[in-house]
Amino acid sequence: MGNGVLENLYHVAIAVNNLNEVEKIYETALGLKVAHREVVEDQKVSTSMLVPKDGGTAIELLEPTSEDSPISKFLEKRGEGIHHICYKVDDLESVLARLKEQGVRLIDETPREGAYNSRVAFIHPKAMNGVLIELAELKDN
Amino acid sequence: MGNGVLENLYHVAIAVNNLNEVEKIYETALGLKVAHREVVEDQKVSTSMLVPKDGGTAIELLEPTSEDSPISKFLEKRGEGIHHICYKVDDLESVLARLKEQGVRLIDETPREGAYNSRVAFIHPKAMNGVLIELAELKDN
Repeated sequence: MGNGVLENLYHVAIAVNNLNEVEKIYETALGLKVAHREVVEDQKVSTSMLVPKDGGTAIELLEPTSEDSPISKFLEKRGEGIHHICYKVDDLESVLARLKEQGVRLIDETPREGAYNSRVAFIHPKAMNGVLIELAELKDN
Repeated sequence: MGNGVLENLYHVAIAVNNLNEVEKIYETALGLKVAHREVVEDQKVSTSMLVPKDGGTAIELLEPTSEDSPISKFLEKRGEGIHHICYKVDDLESVLARLKEQGVRLIDETPREGAYNSRVAFIHPKAMNGVLIELAELKDN
């Protein structure tokens, strides 16, 4: 399509110490269901995507698989909690080009491989008032 | 309806120092539009609800209106960033009753008045791995 527009909020990602335990807590309290689990080697994390029964924005749990994972550092510094939020985009290159033109500081100037067969890039949290924002183009969508 | 079920994610709330400045940043970078502004006296915050062009989960900005606002304390301790996430519910009493039965620790055992003509209650972040979760029953929905 070639537009620089963001779509709906895809997920809210939470850094946790024990994925299996937190899956049970979130399933029970919020009525979410585990839709997908995946280890992302590049980021050294185990991920679990929990979705509401009628679809919509998911919760993504992130457990580090190694002490030098970015999620390990986050947990050491802040403890468990929200790590980032992620918007779906139709055309990641167009969105990144628009953001660069607007002078928005990016962590990733070009897309990289993400979980769930996606291509992703992060906006720098200093550009977004302390909020780490991921943009994800889903290949299967 | 009387069910204890959560609906979709209504908003992600961000504590900020200057609502007007951050509105512009989020409108420009993410393509969101300000749908509603409101001062919530009870919580000593100015709020702004930014929605995606096709609807879906919003971003709620929270600026404290007083030094003893809970948001002032959050900003002093953590700086700007995500403060809580909020799920819509159809029947808040039923959800709270279910959570109590499940032994989930709550901040509010009974509903109180929220922004945008809603009744709200918060789950304790210690019960949800560091994530503060609001439940909102919208009267107009």
